[in-house]
Amino acid sequence: MDVSIIGAGNVAWHLAIALDNAGYAVKEVFSRNARNATAVVERLYAATAKTDLDFSDSRSRIFIIAVTDDAMTEVVQDLILPEDAILVHTSGSRPMSILEQSAKNIGVLYPLQTFTKSKKVDFSEVPMFIEASDKTGQGILMNMAKAISNKVFNITSDDRKAIHVAAVFASNFTNHMLSIAQGILSRRGLDFQMLKPLIAETVNKSLTLGPRATQTGPARRGDLEILDIHMEFLKGDDDALAEIYRVISQHIVDQYAG
Amino acid sequence: MDVSIIGAGNVAWHLAIALDNAGYAVKEVFSRNARNATAVVERLYAATAKTDLDFSDSRSRIFIIAVTDDAMTEVVQDLILPEDAILVHTSGSRPMSILEQSAKNIGVLYPLQTFTKSKKVDFSEVPMFIEASDKTGQGILMNMAKAISNKVFNITSDDRKAIHVAAVFASNFTNHMLSIAQGILSRRGLDFQMLKPLIAETVNKSLTLGPRATQTGPARRGDLEILDIHMEFLKGDDDALAEIYRVISQHIVDQYAG
Repeated sequence: MDVSIIGAGNVAWHLAIALDNAGYAVKEVFSRNARNATAVVERLYAATAKTDLDFSDSRSRIFIIAVTDDAMTEVVQDLILPEDAILVHTSGSRPMSILEQSAKNIGVLYPLQTFTKSKKVDFSEVPMFIEASDKTGQGILMNMAKAISNKVFNITSDDRKAIHVAAVFASNFTNHMLSIAQGILSRRGLDFQMLKPLIAETVNKSLTLGPRATQTGPARRGDLEILDIHMEFLKGDDDALAEIYRVISQHIVDQYAG
Repeated sequence: MDVSIIGAGNVAWHLAIALDNAGYAVKEVFSRNARNATAVVERLYAATAKTDLDFSDSRSRIFIIAVTDDAMTEVVQDLILPEDAILVHTSGSRPMSILEQSAKNIGVLYPLQTFTKSKKVDFSEVPMFIEASDKTGQGILMNMAKAISNKVFNITSDDRKAIHVAAVFASNFTNHMLSIAQGILSRRGLDFQMLKPLIAETVNKSLTLGPRATQTGPARRGDLEILDIHMEFLKGDDDALAEIYRVISQHIVDQYAG
């Protein structure tokens, strides 16, 4: 079954390659920017780059939109698809219904992973959450998702949004905490790598004992003097950091008090 | 060389066992709560539990305070030590000088790790930061730290505080982000374990490519519509979560804009 990919960002890039390798021939890759589309196409067996959204002559059956959520509204408006197309997006937080104006058969294929072009992804371990407007589409999406992942689940738009928000905390915000830590150290010529055993131990413990049993530190102990010392310290670097420190610490204090 | 440990919490527990195993005989363990002191003593070769702070008859040379930062002020006031004692604390954020009123020879031994009694720690990989008031004390602390860790560094009180603040972000706050994610999922009967590949990939990437190259997500993309959708979603669960989401996202947007 042939597939067209609309988008050439991190998700589009990895999904196109995974599907192509799994025997779903990716025929077209769309990006407004021809160079971006071509960069993906070069990794595929028999795809062509496309900079317009008129797919009326396409022989693909499945069309996957993997653009930023901000760009999706515009893409959905301009898209012209063949009659029997199944149109799918990959967003964690958009409802499936956003696609209704562009196609009769619609669905969602949400891969729960963080993607960077420069790093390979083992899709077999990536949970995939699917949703479809009808049984036929659901079967087709289920087969496609199972071709690349061992962990495929049917899910509602609401639960998918909850998973996306949880993923933002667990991945994007976790990474930003590491970024802040690196900044604090590097401004003093100290090496971020010294935190590696601490970070590895924390995450390992959190995934085995659970995050509540793993929580330590001044906020967990209700050690208000240290919280004050740290906020004073951070104000010297960046007021916004002191505010982030304050709201997270307050939440920890409230969660574990008593 | 004999050692006495003042405190019976997570750090005291692991440090006492590591020193005892490395040939530094731990002779006394102090806690106001006799049962807590005894619990540590039972893991040691020849230590006794102590509930008062009069160590004038002690034959130990090194005294390590490992109590919460809040409790330290009180302990330091009440402590009575032999003349040649070397008094050390293990706090990341207290200056060494807080010990001046209790002893002539003072120092700090700060282990950069998160400790939970129920989980063994491989001290050989734990970075240890030391500081001492004189050369003799520094040599003694250096030898002691090297007996349990392969990564021992001399450091100033100021840099130690920076490391502690960085560690709070990298460990305590990172873990709290995972805790929030778990809460969001479990309120809807969804399994936290589904986030495991995402968390593992994020942290692995962050430690190899660096946190800046690893940052993804709606705030990184400047996707304001999704940020609004997520904050609306979180207000239904807990207003404080929406505020945490807002301040961290704003910081990411500011850091990566343009």
